[in-house]
Amino acid sequence: MSFHAQVLTLYPDMFPGPLGTSLAGRARDEGIWSLDTVQIRDFADDRHRSVDDTPAGGGAGMVLRADVLGRAVDHAVTAQPGAPMLYMSPRGKPLTQARVRDLAAGPGATILCGRFEGVDQRLLDARAIEEVSIGDYILSGGELGAMVLLDACIRLLPGVMGASLSGEDESFESGLLEYPHYTRPQEWEGRTIPEVLRSGDHARIAAWRLERSREMTRLRRPDLWERHGDAQVQSPSGERRETKEK
Amino acid sequence: MSFHAQVLTLYPDMFPGPLGTSLAGRARDEGIWSLDTVQIRDFADDRHRSVDDTPAGGGAGMVLRADVLGRAVDHAVTAQPGAPMLYMSPRGKPLTQARVRDLAAGPGATILCGRFEGVDQRLLDARAIEEVSIGDYILSGGELGAMVLLDACIRLLPGVMGASLSGEDESFESGLLEYPHYTRPQEWEGRTIPEVLRSGDHARIAAWRLERSREMTRLRRPDLWERHGDAQVQSPSGERRETKEK
Repeated sequence: MSFHAQVLTLYPDMFPGPLGTSLAGRARDEGIWSLDTVQIRDFADDRHRSVDDTPAGGGAGMVLRADVLGRAVDHAVTAQPGAPMLYMSPRGKPLTQARVRDLAAGPGATILCGRFEGVDQRLLDARAIEEVSIGDYILSGGELGAMVLLDACIRLLPGVMGASLSGEDESFESGLLEYPHYTRPQEWEGRTIPEVLRSGDHARIAAWRLERSREMTRLRRPDLWERHGDAQVQSPSGERRETKEK
Repeated sequence: MSFHAQVLTLYPDMFPGPLGTSLAGRARDEGIWSLDTVQIRDFADDRHRSVDDTPAGGGAGMVLRADVLGRAVDHAVTAQPGAPMLYMSPRGKPLTQARVRDLAAGPGATILCGRFEGVDQRLLDARAIEEVSIGDYILSGGELGAMVLLDACIRLLPGVMGASLSGEDESFESGLLEYPHYTRPQEWEGRTIPEVLRSGDHARIAAWRLERSREMTRLRRPDLWERHGDAQVQSPSGERRETKEK
């Protein structure tokens, strides 16, 4: 069973877009994941195919209608009953790597992309829709958020990153930001690769990398550090942590 | 002077992608912003056009080389000297709407997109590069992050959202999540639009919306609430706040 994404949007032509090239594109060609778009406008019921109307109570912009979206959402649920239904919204729960990992382990995702001022709240109240935010900023619509969420999931699907173990050491997977990387040339503009990385001493390298990760997390992300930093030091569980702490 | 974006990437074909349609696409057609991509591979100096190498100290994946990226970055700085140089990275400072607003008020942005395990740390140490993260999750590369950042900026450029005041009331602009929206039909699946929004009483509507914003922020985002909630209640400054609090 491959990972299947459905995207409800007013701009189906945006897809697959960036997800059609590189890592995600190759994985799609190999059948590791698949994508259907649903044009929200197809669920309008008047001859102008209206999908939005002015906000109740006044204000700028337009709001996507609950009746039109309700039909589009119900159609998508019928097409893939087991998939989580997500709505990309700055009011949603911030997306985390842990949630990405959960989603990637499931059957796929159905993603509703808003535009304009957003969607009628009654839709969110009436259907089992999870509001997800990719960050504390405002986009012109949910489409880029959907792509971000899907890209994050796709790279974790079995076979996508291949035999590479890449991903295990990355930022957030351990609750810490990732350590800095270096590669050849050995010297560049008078700057050399840190000696420890050339030592061949795996334990020393692992210790140095963990220390850099911890230092960077403490300095740059005190919020993450407070949540995870202590666990990193004290937790006796998890092979990776033990390895790193030696 | 229009907003100019330069994107340094191994996948220039991904651009403009989603930024070529809808709001951002129309604004680009109107000359409100412009985009150049820079193919990082063009700055390789061997006949295989190598851009990456294995990580010093071992580990999975590949690291983008400081020498190749240094030449690409210097080229981009020469092309647009005044623009901030950004590197999309999960180790960066989390993007906020305030930073988006700053960037949108400037001449544009030059954005370096990493791939694989990331870039050689010496590049970041040697050049004035700001590391920016769009959220606490891992993507297959920086391209989607660059698109997210640009989309967030573009919608704020003068003329893009037109005469609409849309944007002023949105999530984060006041430090709070946005209030819920409703539109016609008046009744849907037995659910009606809240009475207050049909009252025509603008002060009551504003008070109701502020209360919903505050409630939602407190419940969903205690982190934002701690940072901004009190300011919302107590700050005597700012016309919008005063209006909302009446």
